[in-house]
Parts: sequence; C-alpha cells; structure tokens
Amino acid sequence: MVSGPENPSPHIPPCAEITGMGWAAPGVASGTAVVCNALSVFPIATPLSYASHRARFMHSVRTSFPRPTCFRHSGSGGNEPDECRQRKRPENQGGNRLIVTEYVQISIETLHTFLSRVFVARGFNAADASFIADTLIDADRRGISSHGVQRLAMYDHKLRHGMIDPNAHATVVSDVKACAVLDGHSGMGQLISRDAMELAISKAQNHGIGIVAVRDSNHFGTAGFYARMAADQGLIGLASTNSNPLTVPTHAGLPALGSNPIAFAVGQGDDQLVYDAATSTVSLGKIEVLVKLGQPIEGDWAVDGQGLINHDSADVMDNIKATPRIGGLTPLGGAGETNAGYKGYGLALMVETFTGILSGGLLSLDMRGQHICHCFAAISLESFGGAPLVGSRVAELSRRLRSMPSVDGHDVLVPGDKENTAFRINTTTVTVDEATFRQLAKIGERTGIAAPPAIALDEYR
Amino acid sequence: MVSGPENPSPHIPPCAEITGMGWAAPGVASGTAVVCNALSVFPIATPLSYASHRARFMHSVRTSFPRPTCFRHSGSGGNEPDECRQRKRPENQGGNRLIVTEYVQISIETLHTFLSRVFVARGFNAADASFIADTLIDADRRGISSHGVQRLAMYDHKLRHGMIDPNAHATVVSDVKACAVLDGHSGMGQLISRDAMELAISKAQNHGIGIVAVRDSNHFGTAGFYARMAADQGLIGLASTNSNPLTVPTHAGLPALGSNPIAFAVGQGDDQLVYDAATSTVSLGKIEVLVKLGQPIEGDWAVDGQGLINHDSADVMDNIKATPRIGGLTPLGGAGETNAGYKGYGLALMVETFTGILSGGLLSLDMRGQHICHCFAAISLESFGGAPLVGSRVAELSRRLRSMPSVDGHDVLVPGDKENTAFRINTTTVTVDEATFRQLAKIGERTGIAAPPAIALDEYR
Repeated sequence: MVSGPENPSPHIPPCAEITGMGWAAPGVASGTAVVCNALSVFPIATPLSYASHRARFMHSVRTSFPRPTCFRHSGSGGNEPDECRQRKRPENQGGNRLIVTEYVQISIETLHTFLSRVFVARGFNAADASFIADTLIDADRRGISSHGVQRLAMYDHKLRHGMIDPNAHATVVSDVKACAVLDGHSGMGQLISRDAMELAISKAQNHGIGIVAVRDSNHFGTAGFYARMAADQGLIGLASTNSNPLTVPTHAGLPALGSNPIAFAVGQGDDQLVYDAATSTVSLGKIEVLVKLGQPIEGDWAVDGQGLINHDSADVMDNIKATPRIGGLTPLGGAGETNAGYKGYGLALMVETFTGILSGGLLSLDMRGQHICHCFAAISLESFGGAPLVGSRVAELSRRLRSMPSVDGHDVLVPGDKENTAFRINTTTVTVDEATFRQLAKIGERTGIAAPPAIALDEYR
Repeated sequence: MVSGPENPSPHIPPCAEITGMGWAAPGVASGTAVVCNALSVFPIATPLSYASHRARFMHSVRTSFPRPTCFRHSGSGGNEPDECRQRKRPENQGGNRLIVTEYVQISIETLHTFLSRVFVARGFNAADASFIADTLIDADRRGISSHGVQRLAMYDHKLRHGMIDPNAHATVVSDVKACAVLDGHSGMGQLISRDAMELAISKAQNHGIGIVAVRDSNHFGTAGFYARMAADQGLIGLASTNSNPLTVPTHAGLPALGSNPIAFAVGQGDDQLVYDAATSTVSLGKIEVLVKLGQPIEGDWAVDGQGLINHDSADVMDNIKATPRIGGLTPLGGAGETNAGYKGYGLALMVETFTGILSGGLLSLDMRGQHICHCFAAISLESFGGAPLVGSRVAELSRRLRSMPSVDGHDVLVPGDKENTAFRINTTTVTVDEATFRQLAKIGERTGIAAPPAIALDEYR
C-alpha cells in the first residue's frame, strides 16, 4: 500500500550533500539543472529504478500536494527502510546551483512545442501533431503518467518502424443510423479514436445514441480521454479497446484477452465522473514498474503457467514476453473463483465483443502490438432530463459518497476525483520521471529538436 | 472451493437406513414422496441448513451431471468431514417406497400451472401471470436457483403487503429517438422490464440502438433474462438494475451502492454469450446461504463497519440488517486498493448512473426494497456485419477459449456455458431445495392452490 506524504525523515541527508549521485540528462542545456538522487537506499547504478519508483507514487502525491514533499512506501517485505526525503533548498547552496529532483518539472508550453515538432518530423500535419501532444500532456496533467509523455518513445519506435502510418485516417466500413464501423488503416490511435468519438457524438445528437467500432488502429492513450470528449459536451461517453493478450481466463494458464479497459464519463468540471480501468486486476504497466524496482507484487495481480498466483514481478514479465506467452494478468476478482475472478474475465470478454468482434477486426488472442480495435459510444441526455439535471444528480451522489467517513485514513472518492484534482493543480508544468526525461532528450537528439529543459527551481518556486 | 462430483463414500449409510431423518412437506399429497436426508453429519434439527448447502452446490453439479451423485466440500476450516452421499436405490427397499432426495424434482408443467394460478390469485391477468412464471422457471432451468421459484415467497409477501401493484404497467416519461424513460408505478419488475426491453429492441430496430431507463419498478429476477431477450432476436442485449444499499465504497465502512449487476448477451443457442453478474464480489444471496449453513465466508466478500474483511457470515447479515446498515459487500476486487476494489466500486457507480440517475428515480443509497430502477439497451448488429457473422465470431472465440488447457481440473468456460448446459438438461423438471419446496406448499395452502408435488423417483428415473 502506498501512503500519503509523511513528515520528512531526519535520517536522509540534504540533497546538496549527495549531489555526486546525480546525473545530467543528455541534450539538456548544461547548467540548467543538477539532478540529485537524495535517496541513498538506492544504489547509484540504478537511477531508473528509483525514477520508476517515484513515478509510481507521483500520482497520489500530486493529487494531494502540488509540490510533493515526502513519501513513505511500506513494501510487502516489511523490512524496507522508509524512503523519505526533505525537499527544500539546502542552506549551503549558492549561485545558480539548482535542485531539481529525481523527477523533473517541464513547462507544458515547451513540452507541447517539442512534442508537436517531433510528431511533425515523423510525418503528421501540424494540427494532428498538436492534437496528439494534447492527449499526452492531458494524461500527465491528470497524473496518469503511464499514458502520458512517457509513451512518446513507444510511439516514436512504431512510427520509425512503419507500424503506425502517420498519414492514415479512418475510413467508413459501414454506417447505419446510430451505428458505424471505421477502419483505422494502422493510423495513429489518438487520431483514429478522436474521429470515431466525434462520429459517435454526432450520431448521439441525431439519434440519441451513437456507437462506433474501430478496427486496425493503434494504442490510443487513455480510454478516459475519449469518454470525456462526450461528457464535456453534455453526453455520456463510453470507450474501450482490446490489446495484446495479457489477461488469463479463469482456470487457464495462458493469456487470451487484453487488459481491455472500460471508460465511462458523465458530468462536467470537478464533478465529472470518469471511470477508466482495465478489466484485469491491474494494467501491465504496474508490474513493469515493480520489475524496474526489483520489488515483488503485493496483490494477486498475476499468475504463472500453472494458474498459481505469481508474486515475482520479473518472472511475470519474462513469462509474458515468452513465445508463446505463459501466465499473465489475473482478471478483476483474481485467479480462480473464490473472489469472483470470472467476473473480470467476463467483462474483458464483453469488451472484446464490442471491440474486436463488432469492428470485424483482430482479437486480443491474435494481436501482437498492432491492428488494435476500439469501441466508442455517446449517449444524449435529452431524454433523461437533460445534461444539467443529470450532471447535478451525479454531483450530488458524488458529494454524498465523498462525505462518507473513511475507515483507513484514505478519503472516500469517486472515479475521476484524483485526476480532476491533479488537472487543476498542474496548469503550467507536468512532472516526468528521469527515465522519461532522458528519453525525451534522446528523441530530441535523434530528430534535431531541442528537448524541453527541466525547470529551474527558482522558476518553479 | 467447490469440487465436482466424487466417488460415493462407503461410510455413508444407504438412505433407507436413515429414513427417520426425513421430513414430509406440508401440502404435498401423502405418500407421493419420502424425503431422506442421507447426510448424518448434519443434525436432524437443521434440515434447512442442509438444503441450503445442497442448493449452493446444485448449480455446478447440475451443469456437469443431470442427476447429481455425490459432493465433496473442502471448507476453509480444513477439518470438515467429506460430505458425500451414495445416491442409489437401496437394495432393501420395497413396494412404492421412493427415494427423492433432500432436494426435490418438480415437473416444470405442474410448477408453471401452480405459479400462474398463484399470480392470478394475487391480481395479475392470466398472460402476465404466465410470463412471470416463465421467468422464474427459466432461472431454475438454468441453475440460477437464487433467482428462481425460491423467490416466490418474497414476491408473494410484497404483493400481499401492497409493495408490488399487480395492475401497474409501465408508462412513458420521455421518449426521444433511441432513448426513453419509463415509470413502473411499483409494478411487478418482470412485467415492467419485459416492456422496457421490448421498447429498447424496437428502438434498436428503428435507430440501430435503443436504451430505456426505468424508475419505480421492483425486483426483476435475473438481469440476464432481459439481455437474452435481445440476443435471441439477433441483437446485443444489456440490462442492469440498482438495489438496496449493499456494496461498500473503497475506504468506507457503510454500504452506499446496490449489488448493481451488469448483464450482457450476444449470439444464439449453445454459443450464446451471457454475462450476468453483480458488481459486488458476490450477491447477498451467497452470504445468506452460508448463514443458514452456519459456515464462515472463505473469500473476501464482505467488510465490517471498520472496513475490515469479515468472514463471519452471520455477523455480515446482522450488520446489513441493522439500522443504519453497517459494513456490507466488497466491490469486485475486494476491500481497499490492493486488488483494485475501486474498480468494482466504479462499475457499481456506472450502473447507478444508468439506472437511478438516468431514470430520474431512487438511488441505491435511499432504497429500502422498493422503487428499484433498471436500464436496458439493445444494439442492432446490422452495421456490424449482421447477427450471423457476429454470432459465428463469438462462437469461434468461445470455442478457442474453451479449448484452453485447464490448470486446476475445472474447464475453461465462457459466461453462459454453465447456464446453457443446465437449460439443455432441465427440460421437464427443475430441482428445488427443501426450504423452497416447503414455501411452495405454504403458499399453496394460503391460496388454496395445490402446490406441485415432488416427482416420484420411478418417474424421475
């Protein structure tokens, strides 16, 4: 379990004392930032692990505090030291010596310019490039770092290797009344999905509802982004996607379904209800983070080839990368039937029907990173009392839920609360971990486009 | 975990030796059936517990074997004796002495006549009474005993106390293109829901999709029934409902959402995919069964008022019946965040939006057994390749999933497989536990309508 910010530990030396542990990101203007790893519990040789560790906690912290102060992680081992760091300018620093952190603040404006230019360099027109940048920054602003700018390296790889066609746009396969199927022709998932949700919204305005299935697309970022497109216009939005095989059906030992998320959004502003979650217990990204940290899995998130819970994060990843894949993620509810894992499996299969099957596209079972299928729906609230009334009832229910007493010190929230809070806070900058910061610099070098610098602490404060 | 049928235990005496433990149901024609409890591990004073126990296992057995033979239950305690019974006609029995079992076979035809007459006696017209009987028997035929004829006592109670109006039919609150809201005026849930789904199907045929929210209805039986109405006509069907507050939001200690099931159906025949499950880890009925058995809860199905997992089934039920309610069911994924219980909570909230909020009706938070809200949707497959193509792709995916090697001896299935198999088997009779059998007899006495007799074993065999 991850706790919220705690008081700074007096045992951690101030940052200036251990500046030698820091690193300088390539491609960043010299002298702009000195990055210091203040946590001596991590060996110098593994800065990435720590960055990932911090990235994992970033979200919960940023939703509580605009500027993270200190963390504590109680791992399953129980014998790990507190990882807590005093985040203040040391008394003995001087001149323009700046303390950034092991994660980095970047200007949204600068980052947007950079991303847009990179995407233009990869073949997109300016408007499309700008939109893709919007979607990535939106995820980072909401604390969904896993689907933010840290995905740029993956998109860049696929663009360079012809797996994503920057010039492809969706074409209509069929279009009957409230329903349609689009073919994405291996285009960029964000563009294909934007067009598909816009069509669903248009259909909802004409017919009351619209549903659009999409085949041969690519990774589309967060499903919630498209659900919110509809909610922002006063409709209900739904979005889902299939993916590579990751989720193991109940009683099996091999993955057969994607993480197959469901996103749902209704209402506006701070009371916008946004549910966006995989139908597996967790997404694969959470396990990837633990591998980087060398930490075991606490929960019942994955099984081995015998269907037994596998707490060894590295082993889980090795198995999922094997050919054929072995074991994988548990469906929501876990392995076996004790805690109703067959429900998560059934929900994943429902998503597979709406995506792979309705679109006439590829099933998760046969997928290897390309030709992904989505489904989007928008529902007009005209027949249901209108958007203001529905929005106010959603907001009222959310308020009643949030006012429930907590039993464990963690506030009772509704889906979207953490992300909405983070979005309000992160108006001018976003936080990226050092691995991502390095990746941006590397892509900047490769494309000849200046990567966004880390913000000087003087500017940041 | 519940295992499949095992070899008969040689330690259990043949049924004829312990006929004295049997009971005769009131209102059943004398001599028709001699019921024998063959399991000496249960005290004579608690036949209901045993019946419930058997009811709990009935489903999994009936889906494997049309005539159950023997069970073994490995409880969490690990020290419970095997509960296994030899189910054959003893050598020393003579004449027309019949062995039924501690659960009873009833003719579907006779049961339908009885139910229809009871519902007519409670104020329904003949056609509506017959339809309600259909829905209950359908559940029993599919092995969903919790939502079958055993619910008659609850419906009868509500009808006698004016909580259900047998003459109320749904009226249209709003109807715009593909969307509508109906008011059920406290009518019978099954009738209101049938009309609502028929409207959704009609809208889907006209617009491509139809979505109908319903307020002020009553318990509607299984959500899957209505989803299948659409699937049987070559559409996708979706159905959901809210309920009394049962599910505890993540980090809270009080229930605020119903068990809020989601049902989804597509395809036809044996390959019809039918998902129908609460968004809580289990439905309350599963805990009620354990209370009757005096058994603890094995899984993480419920929490106490402090949000801690509560394995004491009786305590869970006492808390849920308290005013105000304390603790309750965990959302799918469990308590806290370790195994993503916030996802089940979010899904329950999505269902609450589609039911209580879109209908303008009562929220689970404010519900006390009445004024329940539903939502139904039907989606035409015309734009998605047509019902035959979609059905064949669903069937092909199901076949691939079923062919996956099992890791624990339990077949890999798809949602609906167990129920479809049971439905094929139970063509002329259904099985009810002795408690339900007694309730039918009692209602028969009350209404002056002859309750269905248990079927003689000679007829049954």
